[in-house]
Amino acid sequence: MYYALDEKTVVDYVQKSPVMATILVDCNDLVGADLAEGNVNLVFRVYSLGDPEKSVILKQALPYARKYPDFIMPLKRAGIEAELLKIENKYCPGLAPELYYYDNEMYLNIMEDLNKHIIIRYGLMKQIQYPKFSQHVGIFLARTLFYTSDLYLESAEKKEMAARIINPVMCKVTEDLVFTEPYIDHPNNNWTKELTPHVKEIKANKSLQMEALVLKEAFMSHSQALIHGDFHTGSIMVNKNETKVLDPEFAFFGPMGFDIGAVLGNLILSYGSQEYHAKDINKRKEYREWLLKAIKDIWETFEKEFRNLMDTKMNDQWPSERFKDFYILKLLRDTAGFGAAKAIRRVIGMAHVPDMWEIPDDKSRAIAESIALNAAQAWMLNRHDITSINELIAMVRAAKPHPKVIK
Amino acid sequence: MYYALDEKTVVDYVQKSPVMATILVDCNDLVGADLAEGNVNLVFRVYSLGDPEKSVILKQALPYARKYPDFIMPLKRAGIEAELLKIENKYCPGLAPELYYYDNEMYLNIMEDLNKHIIIRYGLMKQIQYPKFSQHVGIFLARTLFYTSDLYLESAEKKEMAARIINPVMCKVTEDLVFTEPYIDHPNNNWTKELTPHVKEIKANKSLQMEALVLKEAFMSHSQALIHGDFHTGSIMVNKNETKVLDPEFAFFGPMGFDIGAVLGNLILSYGSQEYHAKDINKRKEYREWLLKAIKDIWETFEKEFRNLMDTKMNDQWPSERFKDFYILKLLRDTAGFGAAKAIRRVIGMAHVPDMWEIPDDKSRAIAESIALNAAQAWMLNRHDITSINELIAMVRAAKPHPKVIK
Repeated sequence: MYYALDEKTVVDYVQKSPVMATILVDCNDLVGADLAEGNVNLVFRVYSLGDPEKSVILKQALPYARKYPDFIMPLKRAGIEAELLKIENKYCPGLAPELYYYDNEMYLNIMEDLNKHIIIRYGLMKQIQYPKFSQHVGIFLARTLFYTSDLYLESAEKKEMAARIINPVMCKVTEDLVFTEPYIDHPNNNWTKELTPHVKEIKANKSLQMEALVLKEAFMSHSQALIHGDFHTGSIMVNKNETKVLDPEFAFFGPMGFDIGAVLGNLILSYGSQEYHAKDINKRKEYREWLLKAIKDIWETFEKEFRNLMDTKMNDQWPSERFKDFYILKLLRDTAGFGAAKAIRRVIGMAHVPDMWEIPDDKSRAIAESIALNAAQAWMLNRHDITSINELIAMVRAAKPHPKVIK
Repeated sequence: MYYALDEKTVVDYVQKSPVMATILVDCNDLVGADLAEGNVNLVFRVYSLGDPEKSVILKQALPYARKYPDFIMPLKRAGIEAELLKIENKYCPGLAPELYYYDNEMYLNIMEDLNKHIIIRYGLMKQIQYPKFSQHVGIFLARTLFYTSDLYLESAEKKEMAARIINPVMCKVTEDLVFTEPYIDHPNNNWTKELTPHVKEIKANKSLQMEALVLKEAFMSHSQALIHGDFHTGSIMVNKNETKVLDPEFAFFGPMGFDIGAVLGNLILSYGSQEYHAKDINKRKEYREWLLKAIKDIWETFEKEFRNLMDTKMNDQWPSERFKDFYILKLLRDTAGFGAAKAIRRVIGMAHVPDMWEIPDDKSRAIAESIALNAAQAWMLNRHDITSINELIAMVRAAKPHPKVIK
């Protein structure tokens, strides 16, 4: 029977679980710590007091979002997360937390503790360069997306999988918060007051509204691959050598570009936020170039690995070289659109990001946000014509804050 | 318990069914006739000997395709047909056969007998003009597609419906026969020998191959609306006043353009086939103009009704006028692509159409087919740039037989 765990009951639970025989062997001094990290779930670390290296993470779904109790959320997202972690570990071993145990009555997963990693968003805010991040993310995206698409799966298998892994409540959150509310007047929206002239222009831009809805239609109906669904820089933990993609509970069969765009759009946000975080102007310039290179490397690694998979692992349903080129180009254009939508909603919609909200000064924050917005707008409005990642990078490099925001 | 009916047992079955109390009241002289019409199912007419006006059609699914027993087909297609007939009758009363009874153990539907109608394909072969056909078909398409799309349904309702009404086996038939086999060397393909020079050019055309696969990807993953899935001129029965759309057992959530294109692509086939069927050259010209007008009227009625529904019945998720225009334009381009694919497969793939196969002379048939192929190729290759139905009509009017086929 389901009940929500706490720091005390989580220890009792873990002591009766199969991980005692595998990860926590001989640990009779377990303690539980509520990490209180997620917006959405209960997350505990359970570890041995005498040997803190022996530890697991236990993540349990609540019937609502932890930080927003009005958001009713389905418990079965824990099962979707378990399914995704298995797929990710199968095709990208080392790039996602290991799943030790899934309990489909308690709606919880026990998984690898990533205590030697930090969420990359915070590393980016300190101008840390992660030499393997782009490579890892590009590979992760290429493999998880390819292997769950019609390019690889049998036609019927994919259709049955897509019907099984629907995720309507989680999708609706994205439909509203990413594609709808930021472009209309809505009480959920909020933004830095000094950014208002720029926001007004966005709200008046009919092309932008249209593109957001075109992307929303694709999000709602292009069942292209089993996507992570929440692939921002808060869902990726790293250290110099390792990259781990977390939290696939928004997963469903949707457009590949939504995942690729999510991480690139969040790099746009980081790029803008360096206006404040990187105080030294040379260091700022250098780090922004690193961020642009990360965008380029993620895409190029993705494309290379994806093409490699198309050449070597694709099923026999797509006998055309030219089709492969078309497919990749379409992915690039989708990526630009979805990446832009993900960046824009984090600046003018409901849920913001620490890259921006940790900028204490309103004026500085507005300028940083305005740069990110301008880059994102360029991506969204020009996406139908682009043919290479370099064009997208040039748009970010050219992005200036809105003149009325600087004044 | 399921068993396949025959002319004798179908009468016993009907006598115990609820239609005795509604349609066949007081009929104690029922007889069954095997219509042997479909490629796929058992179809019987059960009627009163004394009063043949009192009749029903009983259509039962077999676990395979009747005419192609090697094609294993799911019995549950009968349930999908029942569901579609209900939706069609709800939104388009009079434009589909009435459903009297669905039996989910016998996998059969008892429905309205359309004995005052003929399959329009055969009427077109005799140059009969149906004054209400285009209007009816345009309305049918607009309503069935709009009301089952994300433009009307609640996000979660549509996702749950799409997950419930998957139809993998029927979809696979289309994926193979429409989008794959005609463009490669495949033993299922066959064509008129005299058409070979034209077929060779198609097989060598890398752009056409690519476009066919781009359309296939959309067919497999664009879950836009609950489409009929087999909307050709053999699925439509008519008389001067009425139009009835039959046989929605291929239905699933797919791209709207596949349905609209299916009927327009079959009008291309009819257009080509008039080269033989309309012996008199003036009559041929006149009837071809009627067919072109039908293409135009179907599209324009569809567009008008669809826009009307977007303006008056759309949910609040799409607040942009410009989005509506984009959506319609995308539908037109999809329609051109899918329509072309549907026409091409009927000429060079596995299953042909009587419009062509009833042309006894090989040379004449090859010329008729070559005209249809050329029109379809123009639609498929130019679809990304078109902006109006008139461009598509001009392409059909300009279509000539391949020079090496005439020789």
